Amino acid sequence: MNASAAIGVTGLGVMGRNLARNFARNGYTVAVHNRGEARTRALIDAFGHEGDFVAARTAEELVAALERPRKLLLMVQAGPATDAVIEEFAALLEPGDMIIDGGNAHFADTRRREAALRDLGLHFVGVGVSGGEEGALHGPSVMPGGSAESYAVLGPMFEAISAKVDGEPCAAHIGADGAGHFVKMVHNGIEYADMQLIAEAYDLLRQVAGHTPAEIAEVFRRWNEGRLGSYLVEITAEVLDHTDHATGEPFVDVVADAAGQKGTGRWTVQTALDLGSPVTAIAQATFARAASGQAELRSACAGLPGGVTPALSRTEAARFASRVEHALYASKVIAYDQGWKMIRDAAAEYGWKIDLAEVARIWRGGCIIRASFLDRIRAAHTADPDLVSLLAEPGFAAEIGDAQVPWREVVASAARRGVPVPAFSAALAHYDTLRAGRLPAALLQGQRDYFGAHGYRRTDRPGDFHTHWATPDRVETEA
Amino acid sequence: MNASAAIGVTGLGVMGRNLARNFARNGYTVAVHNRGEARTRALIDAFGHEGDFVAARTAEELVAALERPRKLLLMVQAGPATDAVIEEFAALLEPGDMIIDGGNAHFADTRRREAALRDLGLHFVGVGVSGGEEGALHGPSVMPGGSAESYAVLGPMFEAISAKVDGEPCAAHIGADGAGHFVKMVHNGIEYADMQLIAEAYDLLRQVAGHTPAEIAEVFRRWNEGRLGSYLVEITAEVLDHTDHATGEPFVDVVADAAGQKGTGRWTVQTALDLGSPVTAIAQATFARAASGQAELRSACAGLPGGVTPALSRTEAARFASRVEHALYASKVIAYDQGWKMIRDAAAEYGWKIDLAEVARIWRGGCIIRASFLDRIRAAHTADPDLVSLLAEPGFAAEIGDAQVPWREVVASAARRGVPVPAFSAALAHYDTLRAGRLPAALLQGQRDYFGAHGYRRTDRPGDFHTHWATPDRVETEA
Repeated sequence: MNASAAIGVTGLGVMGRNLARNFARNGYTVAVHNRGEARTRALIDAFGHEGDFVAARTAEELVAALERPRKLLLMVQAGPATDAVIEEFAALLEPGDMIIDGGNAHFADTRRREAALRDLGLHFVGVGVSGGEEGALHGPSVMPGGSAESYAVLGPMFEAISAKVDGEPCAAHIGADGAGHFVKMVHNGIEYADMQLIAEAYDLLRQVAGHTPAEIAEVFRRWNEGRLGSYLVEITAEVLDHTDHATGEPFVDVVADAAGQKGTGRWTVQTALDLGSPVTAIAQATFARAASGQAELRSACAGLPGGVTPALSRTEAARFASRVEHALYASKVIAYDQGWKMIRDAAAEYGWKIDLAEVARIWRGGCIIRASFLDRIRAAHTADPDLVSLLAEPGFAAEIGDAQVPWREVVASAARRGVPVPAFSAALAHYDTLRAGRLPAALLQGQRDYFGAHGYRRTDRPGDFHTHWATPDRVETEA
Repeated sequence: MNASAAIGVTGLGVMGRNLARNFARNGYTVAVHNRGEARTRALIDAFGHEGDFVAARTAEELVAALERPRKLLLMVQAGPATDAVIEEFAALLEPGDMIIDGGNAHFADTRRREAALRDLGLHFVGVGVSGGEEGALHGPSVMPGGSAESYAVLGPMFEAISAKVDGEPCAAHIGADGAGHFVKMVHNGIEYADMQLIAEAYDLLRQVAGHTPAEIAEVFRRWNEGRLGSYLVEITAEVLDHTDHATGEPFVDVVADAAGQKGTGRWTVQTALDLGSPVTAIAQATFARAASGQAELRSACAGLPGGVTPALSRTEAARFASRVEHALYASKVIAYDQGWKMIRDAAAEYGWKIDLAEVARIWRGGCIIRASFLDRIRAAHTADPDLVSLLAEPGFAAEIGDAQVPWREVVASAARRGVPVPAFSAALAHYDTLRAGRLPAALLQGQRDYFGAHGYRRTDRPGDFHTHWATPDRVETEA
C-alpha cells in the first residue's frame, strides 16, 4: 500500500464518515477504516466520487496508507473504547506521528492520554468538533488541543474543513493537552443555558402574555433579526411554528416535556465546582432538564398552589414581550460570560494559554451556539485580552444597564405568577452577587467559625482570626 | 498485651481523641494509637482518668489489644492516607474483624474499600460523624453504613456515644457499604443550603428592611422560638449580635465576605448531577460561596447599576420581616426535601434500603442542621414510607400554601431591589417546576430533535419519534 493519504479516519459512524468526506472534498487523500468492513465499503460506494479515498481493511493497512508524520483521526466511542483503539494504533505508529481524538472525550481523559502518548513520542490531539452531523460534513467549529507543533501540521487541515465566517475559518489552536475538549465541553454547557433561557422566555410569553406558539414563533423571528440573532433563536421559531401532522395541535404541545441529556452539561457543572467557577445559569439549566424527567416527583407535586395570574391586555402583552427580550439578552450575556470565566479559571489551573477572543471567533459558525453577538464578545476580548467579565466592557455594560428595569420586572413577574424561571433568576442573582459591595458571605464565615472554628479574615487587617465563641467575652485571636 | 479493649482508635487528632474519650466515658475500654506517640501520651496524661484507655505504640500492639471480633476506628485523613492505613491494618486483622472509617471519606471510596475488604472477610464500615469537635466528645449524630451484621455489633456502641433527643440515640444503620458516608455528605449539602438561605434572609432584612445586625439578631431569636427553631438560626443570632472588640463595629461588618468551603457541598452537587437529582438550592449555595471568593471578578463588576431601593416605613419593615420568615421557611422545606429526594434516588441507584424517617430522626441532635422541624419531617416519612416529597404531605403542603404570597413577594422584591437571592429564587423555581402541568422542556426536546436528531416522546402515544426538519413538509417518523 502506498503511503499517500494525508489523514486516516478510523470509526465510520455518521460523524466519522462525514468528517472523512469533508477532508476528501477539500482535496485531502483520506484513508478510511472501520472495525466492520461494511461501513468502509458503504462509504466508498456512496461517496467515493467526492474525492480520493483509500479503503483500509486492517489497522496495519490504515497506518501503512498514511504519509509521515502520520495523522490518524479516531472517531470512536468516548471512554474505554477510545483507550482500546489508542493502544492498538500506538503500537503501530512511530515517534512524531499524531493521534487525533475527535470524539466527545472528557478533557481529563484527554490530559491523561496526551501525557501517556507524549512519553512514547507521539502527539495526541484532543479536538472538540461541534455542529453535529451536518456540521461535520459541511463545516464544523473545530477546537483542537494538543501541542503547538501538532497544530502547525494539522491546523491548515482543520481550518480547511471548518465553517467559515466572513472568510475566517472556525478553527484555532485552543491550548495544550485537554484544552480543546475542555472548551468544547463549556460550549455545550453554554448551549444548555441558552436553550433553557429560551425555553423560559417561551414559557413566560405563553403563560404571562397569553400568546400562542405561533405568535411566539413570530416574536422569536423578530428577535432573531436583532441582537439575539442566533441559530438557537432561529430554530426555536421553526419548532414553535410547526403544527403536528397527527393532531393538528402545535407541535410543542404534543412533545413530552421531559428533556434528555447526553452528559456534557453535567460535566461542565461538575468541573466548574472543582474550579470554583460560578456557572449558575448552566447549573440551573442542567438541573432543569433533570427535574423535567423526575416523573414521580412531578406527579406528587402536580397542581400545588401557585401565584396570581391576571390576564394581560394586548398592549401590556406587547410591553411584556419587549421586557422579556431584555431579560433574555441580559441573561444570555451572563450565561456566556460564566462560560468564558470558567475557561479563564481552567487556563490558570491547567497552565493553558487560551485566547478568549479566538474562542468567540470560532464559535461564530458551525456550532449550535453560533450567534451574532459573538462578534461583540470577540471584540471585547480582543480589545482587552485580560478582560475578566463582559459586564466590565462598556458596550455590554450599557446594554445591561438599559436592561435593569425590564429584566428585574420579568423575574419579579415570574415569581409572582408562578412561572418557573430557574436560569433567568440565577443569571440575575449572579449579576447582583458580582456587583454587591458586601455579600452576606461574611455571616457564613461567622457561622463557620462559631460551629467549626474554621476562622475568618477581616476587612481591616491581614491574618486569620478565630473568635472564642464559648468564652463569656468572645475574645478574638489571630491564628 | 491483653485483648481487652472493646474498640481501638488510630489517629488521635482532635476528632479521634474526642471520639476515643466519648467511648471511654461510656464505659468502653479503648485502645488508642497514633503514628507519632506524643499524641497518645498526651491523651492518656490529660484524659486517662475519664475511663479505661490502653496505649498502643504500634499497629501490632493496637490489634493485639482488641477483643474479637476486633473493632478498629480509623480517624485519619480522607484519601490516600486512609487507603495506606487500611492496607497496614488489614494485613494484621482476621476474618470477621471490623474496620470503621470515621473520616470524611467520599462515599464512592467507601464503596470501593468495602468491596475490597469484604473479599478478605473483613467488615468495612464507613460512618458519617457530624457535630464537629464538640459533638465528637459530647454526642455526635452517627451515620454508619456497612453490613447489617456489623451494625448488630457496633450499633449499641454508636448509639451509646451519640447525641440523645427525647431519650432516643442519634445513630442508626443507614444502609450497605457507602450509604453512611453518602447521607453524611447530603447532610453537609443541606447545611450549605440552610446557611445560604439564612444569609439571604439576613441580607434582605438589612438591605430592604433597613435593620441593623443587632435588630436582625432579635428577629432571628424570635424566629428561633417558632417553626424555624434550629441550631443554625440560634447561632446566627449570636453571630449577628456580637460586637467586634477592636473596632466597636458589628462583628459581621468586619469579617471578610469571602466564604470558605471544605468540599462536601461540591461533592453533593457533583453526585446529584450524576443521579439526576435536582438539588438546586444546594447547588446555588455552593456556587454562592465560590462567587464570594472570586475577588477579581467581583472587583471588575463592583458598583454596576442595580435595582430600585425605596426605604420602608417601620410598619412596612415589620411586615417585610414576617414575609421573609415565610420565604425562609418555605425555601428550607424545599432545600431539605431536595436532599431527601437525592438520598431516595441514591438508594434506588445503589440498592440501599434507607429509612428516610430515620435520617430525620438522627439529625435532630448532635449535628449542625438539627432543627425542630426534623420531628415533622420524621413524622411525614414515618406516616408514608414511600413519600416522594414533603410538598405532598398535608401539613407541609398547608404551610407552603400559606407561604405563597409572602414567599413570591420576597423573591420579587429581591429581584427589583437588586439583593442577590440565588438560593431563595432557586427554591421557588424548583417549587414552580414541580407543580407545573407542562414544562417548556417540550420546546427543548424540539430543539434537540431539530439540531441533533435526538428524537422525542409524545404526550398522546408511546414510542420514540423524530421529525425530518429539513424536508419541506417536516414528516414525523417513529424510531
